[in-house]
Amino acid sequence: MSTNAQHNFAFASDNYSGVHPAIMDALISANNGHDKAYVYDSHSQALAEHIKQTFGEQAVGYPVFNGTGANVLGLSAILPRFGAVICTNHAHINNDESIAPQYVAGIKLLVIDSDDGKLDPQKIRHFIRPSEHHPQARAVYISQTTELGTCYSLDELANIRQACDEFGLYLYIDGARLSNAAAHLGCRLVDIAQFADVLSLGGTKNGMMMGECLVFLNPKLDKDILHLRKSSMQLASKMRFISAQFVAWFKQELWLSLAKHSNDMASYLYSQIKDLDGVVITQKVQSNAVFAILPPDVVTKLHDDFHFYDWNDETGEIRLMMSFDTTKEQVDELVEKIKAYL
Amino acid sequence: MSTNAQHNFAFASDNYSGVHPAIMDALISANNGHDKAYVYDSHSQALAEHIKQTFGEQAVGYPVFNGTGANVLGLSAILPRFGAVICTNHAHINNDESIAPQYVAGIKLLVIDSDDGKLDPQKIRHFIRPSEHHPQARAVYISQTTELGTCYSLDELANIRQACDEFGLYLYIDGARLSNAAAHLGCRLVDIAQFADVLSLGGTKNGMMMGECLVFLNPKLDKDILHLRKSSMQLASKMRFISAQFVAWFKQELWLSLAKHSNDMASYLYSQIKDLDGVVITQKVQSNAVFAILPPDVVTKLHDDFHFYDWNDETGEIRLMMSFDTTKEQVDELVEKIKAYL
Amino acid sequence: MSTNAQHNFAFASDNYSGVHPAIMDALISANNGHDKAYVYDSHSQALAEHIKQTFGEQAVGYPVFNGTGANVLGLSAILPRFGAVICTNHAHINNDESIAPQYVAGIKLLVIDSDDGKLDPQKIRHFIRPSEHHPQARAVYISQTTELGTCYSLDELANIRQACDEFGLYLYIDGARLSNAAAHLGCRLVDIAQFADVLSLGGTKNGMMMGECLVFLNPKLDKDILHLRKSSMQLASKMRFISAQFVAWFKQELWLSLAKHSNDMASYLYSQIKDLDGVVITQKVQSNAVFAILPPDVVTKLHDDFHFYDWNDETGEIRLMMSFDTTKEQVDELVEKIKAYL
Amino acid sequence: MSTNAQHNFAFASDNYSGVHPAIMDALISANNGHDKAYVYDSHSQALAEHIKQTFGEQAVGYPVFNGTGANVLGLSAILPRFGAVICTNHAHINNDESIAPQYVAGIKLLVIDSDDGKLDPQKIRHFIRPSEHHPQARAVYISQTTELGTCYSLDELANIRQACDEFGLYLYIDGARLSNAAAHLGCRLVDIAQFADVLSLGGTKNGMMMGECLVFLNPKLDKDILHLRKSSMQLASKMRFISAQFVAWFKQELWLSLAKHSNDMASYLYSQIKDLDGVVITQKVQSNAVFAILPPDVVTKLHDDFHFYDWNDETGEIRLMMSFDTTKEQVDELVEKIKAYL
Repeated sequence: MSTNAQHNFAFASDNYSGVHPAIMDALISANNGHDKAYVYDSHSQALAEHIKQTFGEQAVGYPVFNGTGANVLGLSAILPRFGAVICTNHAHINNDESIAPQYVAGIKLLVIDSDDGKLDPQKIRHFIRPSEHHPQARAVYISQTTELGTCYSLDELANIRQACDEFGLYLYIDGARLSNAAAHLGCRLVDIAQFADVLSLGGTKNGMMMGECLVFLNPKLDKDILHLRKSSMQLASKMRFISAQFVAWFKQELWLSLAKHSNDMASYLYSQIKDLDGVVITQKVQSNAVFAILPPDVVTKLHDDFHFYDWNDETGEIRLMMSFDTTKEQVDELVEKIKAYL
Repeated sequence: MSTNAQHNFAFASDNYSGVHPAIMDALISANNGHDKAYVYDSHSQALAEHIKQTFGEQAVGYPVFNGTGANVLGLSAILPRFGAVICTNHAHINNDESIAPQYVAGIKLLVIDSDDGKLDPQKIRHFIRPSEHHPQARAVYISQTTELGTCYSLDELANIRQACDEFGLYLYIDGARLSNAAAHLGCRLVDIAQFADVLSLGGTKNGMMMGECLVFLNPKLDKDILHLRKSSMQLASKMRFISAQFVAWFKQELWLSLAKHSNDMASYLYSQIKDLDGVVITQKVQSNAVFAILPPDVVTKLHDDFHFYDWNDETGEIRLMMSFDTTKEQVDELVEKIKAYL
Repeated sequence: MSTNAQHNFAFASDNYSGVHPAIMDALISANNGHDKAYVYDSHSQALAEHIKQTFGEQAVGYPVFNGTGANVLGLSAILPRFGAVICTNHAHINNDESIAPQYVAGIKLLVIDSDDGKLDPQKIRHFIRPSEHHPQARAVYISQTTELGTCYSLDELANIRQACDEFGLYLYIDGARLSNAAAHLGCRLVDIAQFADVLSLGGTKNGMMMGECLVFLNPKLDKDILHLRKSSMQLASKMRFISAQFVAWFKQELWLSLAKHSNDMASYLYSQIKDLDGVVITQKVQSNAVFAILPPDVVTKLHDDFHFYDWNDETGEIRLMMSFDTTKEQVDELVEKIKAYL
Repeated sequence: MSTNAQHNFAFASDNYSGVHPAIMDALISANNGHDKAYVYDSHSQALAEHIKQTFGEQAVGYPVFNGTGANVLGLSAILPRFGAVICTNHAHINNDESIAPQYVAGIKLLVIDSDDGKLDPQKIRHFIRPSEHHPQARAVYISQTTELGTCYSLDELANIRQACDEFGLYLYIDGARLSNAAAHLGCRLVDIAQFADVLSLGGTKNGMMMGECLVFLNPKLDKDILHLRKSSMQLASKMRFISAQFVAWFKQELWLSLAKHSNDMASYLYSQIKDLDGVVITQKVQSNAVFAILPPDVVTKLHDDFHFYDWNDETGEIRLMMSFDTTKEQVDELVEKIKAYL
């Protein structure tokens, strides 16, 4: 790692990790001469099958390059030109994708403040204003798990779905870390997906080199998606190398074991630091992230040892993110340092 | 290959091919644990160095996912909001990228008809109309090699640059196949690049798994590019896996040997069929493509054997494209079939 | 007129003229205290009735500020996000609205060259290419009368409509000068409109101060129009002052008498100069414009006398445009000067 | 008024009023035959002079159709493609212009909550985050007077300007009711304008038929505005009829006397109802609006008598807006009814 921190492992993000060996093997194996370009290859066909097996016969998957691409493309596919999207202030599309939703697709965001990253369905009504002067909400965007590492229960998802139905809104789920949510909830992916009209299935943050897959659960919504994906610059010419990763990721539920592991590492870290004096855990640990406030000098020293993100400059909150390949020993090292600096 | 054609090699496109072994080795090698995300990794730093060594000290490279992304991002970086781009009717941005230039960046194309894929600088003047009612040309887009497999000479490029300077236009070169142009001209990449303000350097069509690199030759133009790349959904989180491919591609001029080979295969095919009765070669063979008109029944039969594209339904023109891994034996098979069907 | 030409009347454009007295009276009359804003006023209700009486019970009208606004809004209402529009090279949306179609609505134009401003339906097929790589035509745009002053016959319109139906395209008619077309053809407005899904009805160029009206003939297409009009910045707050003009314009077919007059003035001019040595009439005179090539020195001298536009710098073609208030005496003066300078 | 309320005057909005007689006279007077189109007429030249006299020699004015057009065009002129704008939750561009800022210009809004419609400059810092992942603030948008009828003091404006300078942000002032602010503050328009880089000067809500004028105080920012105005569909062909209104509006400070009057009517209404039991005045009355909470049954009954807007369904707040032509007698009638229903 080109690094000014000492260690060659990081708690910065699950995208600091590399590629799981089984995924890399799949890439090597897919590199067997010529194949059709632009998703007409055999691997993309196999991925289409996995999507149906996982999410149901009506589900259709469209692999893309990255999470921002998936989100903007997925939302643009379900919104009329003038449509707006309700989300939380922590939403990835609000905070972490520059202005891609506005720049590419002209999407207005209607923002609901949240303490834990979850969207409160009671607050949706506030944005339902039919006059032509006001932005018109047509979809709700949530992330599962949320950007704060929390996880909606299935009941919470059902409540959001119900609110969407009441107000005629589509539900889009950003599933950059959907694996971690299913692992935490102990449910199938489809148990979460059933509430969505469209979701993104994240691979990059769970062992893949690159690649996300838009999944359309609502079969009325994907009729324009091929043209929109191309126009949104998210159609890989050698798509087989994204699809083949996903196929390996689905096999023997690799996605689940990797997600469980990173979740477990977060739980372990949490258990080791939650009772330390000077450490305040700021969010429930329900996936592979631990959010905490530590004394500023401790944070400063830790930055010399490990990569991680300062999350909130105003409160001093930091984010410690586990990856599929984070080891218990690495967590132990982190805990040691925290204890030493406190 | 999931195929309805008999052979597992194709003349459809250079993106039907897979990944060169040296590139794949680089990917495996780059997969060594954690590294910083979003181009702050060591491989992306090495790529930055290669760009400077190749294109000059002032040159800066910005890797992206794909060619459409490179083109739209590169043009948007040099155009004001209201700017239009002059290109040929064959331009990739006009024909083959759906409406990405319009959808993502609101770019108007001012189209000059061309027989050989090359833009005639004499025709630029027609679009220089300062009134606020008319679209305002601010850049010229050319492809080197062109979409018809032809290659601008350095003199032709100088003439286009001169016209751009006369009218205050930037010059963008789509270099999806820049390697093939340099190989054909027997010049360095920078000998072509010197005429451009911005160009895209294509990796995917010359042995890489995926990845293009925007190169800014004009140092005044890239100040906004980081924000624009992110907003244009072209920032890979695990960018090291794009950069590492390019690093391997630059080493020992792998790009050149691969491009030479695919060019040679096209020349060889040309030499074998140009004098056949019933075959009309429609474009000069100056890179890795052969454009030809064959009798319709021959074309129909060939489609049972090989993948290739019908290029022009009105004339019956087809495109036969060579890849870095196309073998002389494969070309011979193709020639055999053509002869047999004529 | 703030002018460097001698005369205070012009042949530059029908928007150099002012407002017809009956229209001005309607504005004064509408200024009677408070009324609801944003088209919920009584004048806008009366306009809605006129639209139905004129174009049929299913027709719905949406007044807007100007012609560019009408065109871009009308096309955006019928296009999916990725949709492209087929038009001629002379199309107002291609030449004379800067890049509004691209900038506001991301619209790609697929351009068919034309000699007389009319779109040849035989050439539509060329742009019907279903692959996701190519721009997807979803509508055809024509202007009636055309930008070159020519007028489609009803049979020609029927042929274009038939081609649209064959290829699943909507037909949008730019009716900035629809009045002049109906006057020339001796038909009702609906006889032209019947072929369109959506059209713009132009008032500004035929006696109004400002205002155009989008007319949706196809009742399935206007469901989003209120939100789109507002988002496209074309909703006037005191809309009654646009609607009231149209109401006066419809009364006693004022539109028709004004259009007939300007057409007649063009016919008269044509009759006076068509046989002069040195004058080449370049387009059929079928509305209120005369296009002609005169010797360069004659054109130069005429510019000292009258405002008019040089239309084509390469050929020396000029455009002489008649307005609702152009008098026979003014045309005579123009003819005198032309004769004097020849 | 086509109305379900009894009276033919309204407290709904200052755009329910008509046109001041002096403005109407100017329109009639401007209708004197032919004049150049598209702002090259004599009235537009006179307006340009008034702008310089009012705002300083470096100031340049660009008339447009309406307020939404002015805001989106003005902001787009000062923002790079990826730029975001800081504003309050009450901002007109956030609430009342549908999604025009996103749809037309891809503008991301960074929203600061406010109780009184004013933007707290202390909260700007929160949105200054240079990373390419986050939206990049490049401008601050405020309305003077605010959407809640409050008015920034000159000191408050200076503080906002200072914060903008600290963070390298442009300041855009939405002056749809700038007249009312100057009237309230007892200052010149330029005393407010001096803090802005660009502002919109509102005519429609203060006696004009239609028309706003973008004023560029910062002379570096308007170089692209002609092309952008055209591309944003805000260039009137018979612009003289907008400019002539403004010229009349500037003469003898008509704008000021009209604004003073509507402000006075609001003050008068306020004085008559502020101490009534059951009436809660919710915002300071610093322009031509009174915001108040009345018992729900009173509001219901009032709606049978007068047009006005329910402002906040959750609190029951209503808005009572005075126009240039609101009379003391009309306010008295309103007060009578309120008293009767309480």
